[in-house]
Amino acid sequence: MSTPVYDPPALEKGALRVTPLGGLGEVGRNMTTYEFDGKILIVDCGVLFPEEHQPGVDLILPDFEPLKNRLDDIVGVVLTHGHEDHIGAVPYLLKLRQDIPLIGSALTLALVEAKLKEHRIKPVLTVVKEEEEWDIEPFVLEFVAVNHSIPDALAIAIRTPAGLVLHTGDFKMDQLPLDGRITDLRAFARLGEEGVDLFLPDSTNADVPGFTPTERAIGPVIDQVISKTPGRVIVASFSSHVHRVQQVLDAAAANGRRVALLGRSMVRNMTIAADLGYLKVPDNVLVDYKKAKDIPDDQIVYMSTGSQGEPMAVLSRMANLDHAIEPGAGDTVILASSQIPGNENAIYRVIDGLTKLGANVVHKSNAKVHVSGHAAAGELLYCYNILKPKNVLPVHGEYRHLMANAKLAQDTGVAEERTILGENGSVIDLKDGIARVVGQLDLGFVYVDGSTVGEITDADLKDRRTLGEEGFVSVIVVVDAATGRIITGPEIHARGIAEDDSVFEAVKPKIAKALEEAAASGVRDTHALSQTVRRTIGRWVNQSLRRRPMIVPLVIEA
Amino acid sequence: MSTPVYDPPALEKGALRVTPLGGLGEVGRNMTTYEFDGKILIVDCGVLFPEEHQPGVDLILPDFEPLKNRLDDIVGVVLTHGHEDHIGAVPYLLKLRQDIPLIGSALTLALVEAKLKEHRIKPVLTVVKEEEEWDIEPFVLEFVAVNHSIPDALAIAIRTPAGLVLHTGDFKMDQLPLDGRITDLRAFARLGEEGVDLFLPDSTNADVPGFTPTERAIGPVIDQVISKTPGRVIVASFSSHVHRVQQVLDAAAANGRRVALLGRSMVRNMTIAADLGYLKVPDNVLVDYKKAKDIPDDQIVYMSTGSQGEPMAVLSRMANLDHAIEPGAGDTVILASSQIPGNENAIYRVIDGLTKLGANVVHKSNAKVHVSGHAAAGELLYCYNILKPKNVLPVHGEYRHLMANAKLAQDTGVAEERTILGENGSVIDLKDGIARVVGQLDLGFVYVDGSTVGEITDADLKDRRTLGEEGFVSVIVVVDAATGRIITGPEIHARGIAEDDSVFEAVKPKIAKALEEAAASGVRDTHALSQTVRRTIGRWVNQSLRRRPMIVPLVIEA
Repeated sequence: MSTPVYDPPALEKGALRVTPLGGLGEVGRNMTTYEFDGKILIVDCGVLFPEEHQPGVDLILPDFEPLKNRLDDIVGVVLTHGHEDHIGAVPYLLKLRQDIPLIGSALTLALVEAKLKEHRIKPVLTVVKEEEEWDIEPFVLEFVAVNHSIPDALAIAIRTPAGLVLHTGDFKMDQLPLDGRITDLRAFARLGEEGVDLFLPDSTNADVPGFTPTERAIGPVIDQVISKTPGRVIVASFSSHVHRVQQVLDAAAANGRRVALLGRSMVRNMTIAADLGYLKVPDNVLVDYKKAKDIPDDQIVYMSTGSQGEPMAVLSRMANLDHAIEPGAGDTVILASSQIPGNENAIYRVIDGLTKLGANVVHKSNAKVHVSGHAAAGELLYCYNILKPKNVLPVHGEYRHLMANAKLAQDTGVAEERTILGENGSVIDLKDGIARVVGQLDLGFVYVDGSTVGEITDADLKDRRTLGEEGFVSVIVVVDAATGRIITGPEIHARGIAEDDSVFEAVKPKIAKALEEAAASGVRDTHALSQTVRRTIGRWVNQSLRRRPMIVPLVIEA
Repeated sequence: MSTPVYDPPALEKGALRVTPLGGLGEVGRNMTTYEFDGKILIVDCGVLFPEEHQPGVDLILPDFEPLKNRLDDIVGVVLTHGHEDHIGAVPYLLKLRQDIPLIGSALTLALVEAKLKEHRIKPVLTVVKEEEEWDIEPFVLEFVAVNHSIPDALAIAIRTPAGLVLHTGDFKMDQLPLDGRITDLRAFARLGEEGVDLFLPDSTNADVPGFTPTERAIGPVIDQVISKTPGRVIVASFSSHVHRVQQVLDAAAANGRRVALLGRSMVRNMTIAADLGYLKVPDNVLVDYKKAKDIPDDQIVYMSTGSQGEPMAVLSRMANLDHAIEPGAGDTVILASSQIPGNENAIYRVIDGLTKLGANVVHKSNAKVHVSGHAAAGELLYCYNILKPKNVLPVHGEYRHLMANAKLAQDTGVAEERTILGENGSVIDLKDGIARVVGQLDLGFVYVDGSTVGEITDADLKDRRTLGEEGFVSVIVVVDAATGRIITGPEIHARGIAEDDSVFEAVKPKIAKALEEAAASGVRDTHALSQTVRRTIGRWVNQSLRRRPMIVPLVIEA
């Protein structure tokens, strides 16, 4: 079911070319390029986290291939907000050209800068804020405040002679956000009156009816849980969720407790957020983790990472009694977070472990301790009606989310032929007020694994899946180069198959016989002899064990 | 965090010994043994399905170890209902002793019989039904109708001189079930008045507040979806959910459509259910799959398996255009099922694939097309109040479910010391109206993989996880037995690591050097030389690639 690939025509004069490189058909690695008059503007440059069919992969990047011989044409990368799926691939892009200008809000760029420091890259940064304009030839950018699950998110209005584009980034429309910074619907209205030629809205929750509840609703729940807990309170959440942490700090302060931050990313991000004034730390509330042990149980809250059941994170280690803090009776653990699909089993293993230790565990399924960061269908309808866009390209979502968002656009009167269901690599030209798909690039997944980028291929992942499901059997035979006769072997070793290798004794004579026959008929090529070994043992394993491990035969001449 | 293992004392005369072998701390492989006066009765004998950390495993069995030298003492296996997590391990138990009597309702035993036929086992069956008693020395059994997501489920009351035990099996309390067969609360009341000494209730939904909605609520939703669909309708559900299929058949009939069953287990189970009268097939509704293609799109419903996104099942294959039925615009697919934790990504891949083909996909998250088969907290409270059990041992659930169920018992007045939080292998003796834990057996996971049972160990699974995450590097060196000098090699081959093996050229001289040094210092033992190879390449791979693949060194003498 792969989409036919075809080259786009040369970009016409006066037309704007929009190419999403990531984020369409997936939640992650958001990245879109805008080309006008030979110059390229990039919006976001994020990573995708691997699923279970991509074992061992650390991160997945957008495919930068279309940019590789255009690096000097890039005028800048605008970052809508500081989440990994929007900024995480920046270091890998800058490794191609280090001085590409990065443009974004203060918090976003502070988070990017910290990340780049780990990669030893010193970036060129331009801090902007809402209601500002930025002229970056031939693009004129205007920044619009939007509300999301991280502070300081921006929507980007992009003006070129081809028309006005509005790219929302991730957003929702909490009407009572903690920091008072609402999604600026007055600006949306003004842009709508000017005429939005192309609208690229966040689709994550487009298939969720109604409205995302306010973040403010969570504070009282956390406050109540803390006030009723006789022992320690441990709260786990995302390490960039400043407002969630804010509510924990406030609730702790109100209950006369101090807060210790746990986990490297939590400490780093909250230090940045506090330094920049996004996190308002109540007086005398934060305490260093090392000093927290001296504080009585009923006067401490630990704020940690690990809400997704990540095995090496603080919370999992606590559940396995592999951490200095050992939760028990009287303690409460709050998982103030979503359950990202695929993580449920890991999360419930942590919940069960903590429950078994005697702790009370409060999570999304038994209390209102999480709200989404994305606009639900009801909110998106407001956007469409206020903007009345001429063309819509839903972004940021799996296919069903893009589809649901396109339907919402159509429900508000956008013509079906003006709602574009694109994919990564779709090339969309905007000209004379009409956006249409004019090409489809062939883009791949770029896997980061250890220190390697793009070395691991889909074939390697297929090998890993086979190895992980079935293990392997290696067979080594040393033969005489001249006669083809076996000198040593077959030596058979297996992993992930059975308790010991003695099970393979039965097949050794068969392999020896097959090799003798091949040698007798004049075969000397070690590759051909390896294939003989593979067939012989493969058939035997399938029949006698009903398994299909990877067979790794090796015939060596000596 | 493993529980200390300790031997139980010899069973006292007049006491009943209860030992759960599976189902506690997990959802699956339910099995409990009851011992009195040297005889053993087993309730249920199910399988557990593997999670992602148990790759390649087909099924997980309860550990039969404690029964292996007691096989002749087993008087029978009572099966509460026909789900795999209650009957799936029966063939493996009967392989130990084929004539163990099986006792259960007509549908349950018909499903067991079909399963045993595939294993070429002819069982000894005793069909029973609700309100009947069965005397199986020294146990007197009474069967009580309970309502569940499969027809003909039974709770088991077990009488011995030690007292009265009630083992619910899986159940809920739908007050308007499709077949009119409600959970028999009158019988529960009568047993309660007699005095229930030990109660073993289903805990699956004990942490879900309120009441499970009636199965009857789903019919109108399915009917409406079918009536509004211009093209084909494809419904996927569990292949044993007779009442769900019943509602699809009825809705199809009401809309003038015929139904073709798809998937081996769906066809087999529904044939059994129809033969026994549990499935009431409306006249002229069922049609053979092969003839269904000739029926116009707006007159057909396909009823299939694959609702969990299983890659080889019908629905996944349709989503991948790898099936004769290719869903498209105008068609509707209904996933009338739960999303079992861990399956979400697979399920959503199927939903996205179908959406992309143009089909309308209706599922649990956007319509009321599924209800649970298990009693929620509200229903369990009714049970506790009507039964007033003296001792409670919650079964069938992860630890948090057992804990929630114990709390419900305590809320209705059961003393905390009379609610037992057991584990698999906990040995619980009931004597003089008091149940207490007297031992803890050391039980393991028994993995079925291909044709092998119990051959795959936890160490093998750890190997598989390493292989699946990181791949392996094999290094083969042939050395001269006398001098230790290298004759051939090192040959290095890797899978799941990188595109080609040339990356390892750099380390070959290091390996050769390390071996030469070892040989020079007199080392001749091939195992010791292998360890030298392992250390050398392992360190190099960690440092240069930042990975930790499995290293498989082999030094061969020739």
